[in-house]
Amino acid sequence: MSVRVYLDTDIGEGFGVWGNDDESELMGLVSAANIACGFHAGDPDILRRTTTLAAERGVSVGAQVSYRDLVGFGRRFIDVARETLVNDIVYQIGALQAFARIAGTEVTYVKAHGALYNVAADNVEQAAAIVEAVEIVDPAMPLLCQYDTEVWNRALERGITPIAEVFVDRGYTSQGRLVSRKHTDALLTDVEAAARRAVSMVVERTVISVDGERAPVAPADAPALALCVHSDTPGAVAMARATREALSENGFRLEPIGFSR
Amino acid sequence: MSVRVYLDTDIGEGFGVWGNDDESELMGLVSAANIACGFHAGDPDILRRTTTLAAERGVSVGAQVSYRDLVGFGRRFIDVARETLVNDIVYQIGALQAFARIAGTEVTYVKAHGALYNVAADNVEQAAAIVEAVEIVDPAMPLLCQYDTEVWNRALERGITPIAEVFVDRGYTSQGRLVSRKHTDALLTDVEAAARRAVSMVVERTVISVDGERAPVAPADAPALALCVHSDTPGAVAMARATREALSENGFRLEPIGFSR
Amino acid sequence: MSVRVYLDTDIGEGFGVWGNDDESELMGLVSAANIACGFHAGDPDILRRTTTLAAERGVSVGAQVSYRDLVGFGRRFIDVARETLVNDIVYQIGALQAFARIAGTEVTYVKAHGALYNVAADNVEQAAAIVEAVEIVDPAMPLLCQYDTEVWNRALERGITPIAEVFVDRGYTSQGRLVSRKHTDALLTDVEAAARRAVSMVVERTVISVDGERAPVAPADAPALALCVHSDTPGAVAMARATREALSENGFRLEPIGFSR
Amino acid sequence: MSVRVYLDTDIGEGFGVWGNDDESELMGLVSAANIACGFHAGDPDILRRTTTLAAERGVSVGAQVSYRDLVGFGRRFIDVARETLVNDIVYQIGALQAFARIAGTEVTYVKAHGALYNVAADNVEQAAAIVEAVEIVDPAMPLLCQYDTEVWNRALERGITPIAEVFVDRGYTSQGRLVSRKHTDALLTDVEAAARRAVSMVVERTVISVDGERAPVAPADAPALALCVHSDTPGAVAMARATREALSENGFRLEPIGFSR
Repeated sequence: MSVRVYLDTDIGEGFGVWGNDDESELMGLVSAANIACGFHAGDPDILRRTTTLAAERGVSVGAQVSYRDLVGFGRRFIDVARETLVNDIVYQIGALQAFARIAGTEVTYVKAHGALYNVAADNVEQAAAIVEAVEIVDPAMPLLCQYDTEVWNRALERGITPIAEVFVDRGYTSQGRLVSRKHTDALLTDVEAAARRAVSMVVERTVISVDGERAPVAPADAPALALCVHSDTPGAVAMARATREALSENGFRLEPIGFSR
Repeated sequence: MSVRVYLDTDIGEGFGVWGNDDESELMGLVSAANIACGFHAGDPDILRRTTTLAAERGVSVGAQVSYRDLVGFGRRFIDVARETLVNDIVYQIGALQAFARIAGTEVTYVKAHGALYNVAADNVEQAAAIVEAVEIVDPAMPLLCQYDTEVWNRALERGITPIAEVFVDRGYTSQGRLVSRKHTDALLTDVEAAARRAVSMVVERTVISVDGERAPVAPADAPALALCVHSDTPGAVAMARATREALSENGFRLEPIGFSR
Repeated sequence: MSVRVYLDTDIGEGFGVWGNDDESELMGLVSAANIACGFHAGDPDILRRTTTLAAERGVSVGAQVSYRDLVGFGRRFIDVARETLVNDIVYQIGALQAFARIAGTEVTYVKAHGALYNVAADNVEQAAAIVEAVEIVDPAMPLLCQYDTEVWNRALERGITPIAEVFVDRGYTSQGRLVSRKHTDALLTDVEAAARRAVSMVVERTVISVDGERAPVAPADAPALALCVHSDTPGAVAMARATREALSENGFRLEPIGFSR
Repeated sequence: MSVRVYLDTDIGEGFGVWGNDDESELMGLVSAANIACGFHAGDPDILRRTTTLAAERGVSVGAQVSYRDLVGFGRRFIDVARETLVNDIVYQIGALQAFARIAGTEVTYVKAHGALYNVAADNVEQAAAIVEAVEIVDPAMPLLCQYDTEVWNRALERGITPIAEVFVDRGYTSQGRLVSRKHTDALLTDVEAAARRAVSMVVERTVISVDGERAPVAPADAPALALCVHSDTPGAVAMARATREALSENGFRLEPIGFSR
């Protein structure tokens, strides 16, 4: 069976004078850029530069939407009312869409960032808000999220396409969730081992958890899978390159995340 | 000669718990809503509500773009670099466009707010930034601005349509600029007189200044003219109604601000 | 037994152009001003004006500290890490202290605002953060909070003086907590009845809940009690006046909240 | 004649996840820390950490106050009204004072940051605002600024002590101002040459400008002089160390910036 494989990364996550490293090397390796939209990171200059870079490299542009929390980098739960959260997300997607159009491309998917990403796995109201935002902006856009979570199921319910996102560089629990960053095995540092595990996740749709169990990370019949490399770890570029090569050796070619209306 | 006449107002200018008065009455009188986009006022909930209200009333939606200055309500000059200002404006238009589409309408024009509006009359770099933002987002969108200013001329130069905006409730200098708010005749409070003057501005394309001179406010052959009523003055609704009626009695029908691609 | 009675109100809660009503009448009635410090409301101009007004009226100045959430007015829970919350509160108190000194007065107490106030009733970490902030800034400052809550008990544990705050205008549950704003009896609108109930709370240290039970609102031997009138309800001034008069008729004289080192 | 020599640096200029490098090495070399107060950089956690570090190293704490402009890092002129600017500065100093007290030290001086620093050299209203803020917070606090500027003269006029700040790593014009960062000689990179020039500035109170002229940088009889090393240049630590050593070899011992009431 054929599967579409994406390599995605969180990118454009500086603000003002801060965090404006050259991200062109990483952008040359991934196929999908989860671009910060200004609520946890990303000012308009960065949105412009990052969408332009993505367009030049043929990398698809995704809206990485967040709670409004610059000082907390979107990593803290905020008890935002559902309707407000819908509008916060619409606002961010809209802003990014303008830059994408200028760069000659378009926003083809959405991904929640940080605490919102994690909260959406269980919080019914906030999961529904994310899905509703996608639905009213453009129901053809897929939503990157973790398999078999509240937001995943809600997307299916509403006719939005969820794409299972798996993490190349993170340890998993036996329930298929990420282990806490405090755990010794939270972060994979062996680039080659991580790349091999990534291929295996694509093929098997499962991962071996930190306690040796096999956990599902995507439906057995998923037509697509997104492999995420975090850009803020020092070895991100090496990890992205190794993953790309390992996939290629196993006959998987990276694709941008597209959509059809 | 036929002329298209618009009645516009700055609207949706609250933030969070503040300034959320019911604006439906004013929205029922104007034909064009200059909606704040979040930089000087306007949070996503307000953008949603205001674009929805505009769509329901058949009022056209304009992006009222500003410096990033909530605490100063966009009323203070900020020496923003040209390229950054372009991107700041793109960001705001994009965010509003998403809400407009959801409401079943679209953003059909742009207007600078506050200090940016005034600065654009003379500042070459910032005037160029406003025009460039419109140009790269959608060159079919007209730009509301004052006649014969730097930004007006720049728009013409770049093929963007400037629409002369005149102020129903403000006194003018003999150069056709607004007199300072400190001037005794800065604000017109006689609703009927203001409405008559508005009609006269549409017909004559001139205004009698506070010192009795006749000053131009629009080109003699302008195909369209926008009459602005400030929503933050207590008599705004009465002034909008009187202006609307006076125009109607003189055979002018208000139209939304459209554009054609 | 003698008791010190304070009448307090949340005040200075505008931002920029918004919410800058004249609050001098209310300031003339209360004895303690819970002044917003910039995180949920209150810009430096407002802090200056409000502390000056409080000093002129002999009203004590309290730091009304909040989550950093302007758009949400501090009404949404944010999962701020304990140490960060401590520092957020210190920052706000420090800023207000500078204005208080300039006005010739000083910050004599602290009160959490909005969601932080409510969360501190149960959340161990955030309650501890509030108390720790008071402790490191000035352990002589009392803390306004609800009786028999997590933050109340934590304050006692750490040697900080809690002052029981009761609400003149709100309905209570039989556990002595406020009923949800959605409840029909959430808000008392009969000014005289509310004033009588306020006196009774001072005398009895209990309140009759919305379901007819007697609930404790302060320790039987509490040396002081703060009666809060919300400034954002239309009848706030009338309610404050009636409460003040009812207290006076019953021999209670309002005092500012002082402290001794 | 004896002179007090300070070595100062801008520090604590991160925000949230950004810019939180370990600054303890630099803090071990300077005698005065210009700590960002939250308006252009610096969140409460950073203020806490940086004041603590300064206190531990016996480095004096200065309030590095700015326009409210996180995204622009305080580097853009904002046309803030005088009274508002006074209050903005008071707010920042007050917040830092709370952290300084907790760390067992105090804020002993003030320095404007970025655009405000430069604008204060010529802008009468804003220069007056800075001086007024110092005056009402604590007139005993000296103000770091450039010699013979508007703000320098205003400080003298109002009885505030100005301390001439000279830049170890920047080229000067023949008027004693910094050359634009675009100039080829804007930045000194030869650490030893810069250190020698620093000593010479202390001894001579003049500097050789980029076009070979001798320009004054401090009054001939100035009792104190502050040498600034920018922390955001890669060689900052080496430059601070070389300057410290060159001063020591020439008999100058660095002192913290104190004040006496």
